[in-house]
Amino acid sequence: MKRVNALKEKAFEEKGFDGFLIANEANMLYFAGFPGAACLLIPRDGESMLYVYSVNYEQAKAEGKGFHVELIKRDENLMAKVAKQVEAFGIKKLAFDVLTVESYRGLAKELRGKTTLKPKNSIVWELRKVKDSEELELMRKAGELTCEGMKAAYEVIRPGLKEVEAAAEIEYAMRRKGGWGTAFDSIVVSGARSAFPHGGCIEREIREGDLVVVDIGAAYHYYRSDMTRTLVAGKSSEKQKRLYEVVKTAQQNAVQAVKPKAKAKDVDAVARKIIADSGYGEYFVHGLGHGVGLEIHEPPTLNQTSKDKLTVGNVVTIEPGVYLVGFGGIRIEDTVLVKERGREKFTDDWYTLETSR
Amino acid sequence: MKRVNALKEKAFEEKGFDGFLIANEANMLYFAGFPGAACLLIPRDGESMLYVYSVNYEQAKAEGKGFHVELIKRDENLMAKVAKQVEAFGIKKLAFDVLTVESYRGLAKELRGKTTLKPKNSIVWELRKVKDSEELELMRKAGELTCEGMKAAYEVIRPGLKEVEAAAEIEYAMRRKGGWGTAFDSIVVSGARSAFPHGGCIEREIREGDLVVVDIGAAYHYYRSDMTRTLVAGKSSEKQKRLYEVVKTAQQNAVQAVKPKAKAKDVDAVARKIIADSGYGEYFVHGLGHGVGLEIHEPPTLNQTSKDKLTVGNVVTIEPGVYLVGFGGIRIEDTVLVKERGREKFTDDWYTLETSR
Repeated sequence: MKRVNALKEKAFEEKGFDGFLIANEANMLYFAGFPGAACLLIPRDGESMLYVYSVNYEQAKAEGKGFHVELIKRDENLMAKVAKQVEAFGIKKLAFDVLTVESYRGLAKELRGKTTLKPKNSIVWELRKVKDSEELELMRKAGELTCEGMKAAYEVIRPGLKEVEAAAEIEYAMRRKGGWGTAFDSIVVSGARSAFPHGGCIEREIREGDLVVVDIGAAYHYYRSDMTRTLVAGKSSEKQKRLYEVVKTAQQNAVQAVKPKAKAKDVDAVARKIIADSGYGEYFVHGLGHGVGLEIHEPPTLNQTSKDKLTVGNVVTIEPGVYLVGFGGIRIEDTVLVKERGREKFTDDWYTLETSR
Repeated sequence: MKRVNALKEKAFEEKGFDGFLIANEANMLYFAGFPGAACLLIPRDGESMLYVYSVNYEQAKAEGKGFHVELIKRDENLMAKVAKQVEAFGIKKLAFDVLTVESYRGLAKELRGKTTLKPKNSIVWELRKVKDSEELELMRKAGELTCEGMKAAYEVIRPGLKEVEAAAEIEYAMRRKGGWGTAFDSIVVSGARSAFPHGGCIEREIREGDLVVVDIGAAYHYYRSDMTRTLVAGKSSEKQKRLYEVVKTAQQNAVQAVKPKAKAKDVDAVARKIIADSGYGEYFVHGLGHGVGLEIHEPPTLNQTSKDKLTVGNVVTIEPGVYLVGFGGIRIEDTVLVKERGREKFTDDWYTLETSR
């Protein structure tokens, strides 16, 4: 209820709305602690309503504490049902997070002009961007589990192993230690394919001297973590070492630039300048990072054009990379919490290019 | 290109459009064989354009065969860029699959009334609903891998094991045999929680005599499979056995009802009648099944109100269940291909309640 009350404060007291409709799944999880609801109607006065289809009704009643759980019957029009309740609550200015075109039109029609309807997902993000202590505990654990996966990567990756086989061992290591699954599809890209930032993992056999980019994350109680290390199967070349040092320096300096009130684009610039000064500027083909939480990509965004500012409680990735077509890629990434005095890394502080076998 | 040509045939020859904009990720994978594009513009005449941000540009050029790969530069307005190309192609009637409200409004504005814009995702589903031989090979493999996971479930589940620990072993078994990951978040729900169809899996320890619903799926080359078995940790009770037989009979009879031209709601009715006749009708709280493919939930839909008809090449789940609050739930599910003469199950034909330890 603490989070619902914070939303009421921001949306009702500060912005003058008198109702908020939540329809996005992650938002529902955030406010109701339960993932299987169709939507959540929060009135200024009265009990918040969690709308649930029959398949999840009993679970919602057991787990959706503090809410009135309303069953959506088969063939009942959800938006008509919500509109009726909006009227019963006397809501005149209804904010919502995210609706499909169909739902938006359906709801607007049912409200018959008696209630205004405004998209205000930004208000929800203001809250979700700043993680509370409960969330941070889960994210710390997700970070630890991700490190277990990375340790496994350094242990198993060797010439002859397939990318998908490496992923199997990595994911098992995270799961075995208590993980709830992967935060996103694991990336293990090797050789020339390592130059593809989102190369996934395929049946390719890793070869001696290949660069291998390992980008993985564990999920824990719906919270996620994100970490990348780049390693060489076997002995690394001079060029690989040189490039690795560039990316490592860029990443470590950018991590140090993470602090309250820092502009996201300035943090991006720290890494980008180091890479550009080394002559690889055009090969850093993506932004520096993104927020993480219930979803793997959240605000704030860290890139050259971001208008975001970091604040205490933000959790973001710092992940510069350099990608040379035909040669391979190097990326190093950590998940980092913005703290009153600087930062805390949720992922380990080790940086090694070779697996030292 | 075969799939793009089939879309052109349906959308352009039969429906009179002269352009199709694809923006949904799974649709892009289906038509372009590449997951990282922002959108795909298919004109009646001329080369189809794959729009890609810099992070995925090199991979798209390497893997997006048969398409012109167009780089979206930083801060370039994607919809303005697409609109310009629509004009260059001389497209007058543009169909699209799925757009957000923002993208739809942006594109419509840029087209300045010179091109009409119509949502026609249904045309894409007409194609995607009927799997081709290449897809079926991948889905068969996904089914085999899922069975490996289910075998592991029967091997490891015992009193004292936690739900999340069971999931770790199940997912590892699927991965180790070549899986590309999970088709969805694994469900291992035990005891009273097994009455929650979407209960996920938590740190709960499985106890002697618990019903355990195991609902899992492997992914293989982007294709998915879906399978559920229910088992008892230890010895089963008479009531568990009785309920199991009801659900098993309902499931097996519904599977036998899968054939070309069958109405989806009639297949649902086969299972629903058997469960209702046993007195548990009100506890079968969801539809009978859904299509599977690149996504875990696809058309056709099998429930009481579905208007879908099955056709050769559809791949659907058949998954009746009965859920008694406080007692537990039983669900049995297979992934089934509709064939000229009946059907083919992609998941195994074994039905056992006890793990026989």
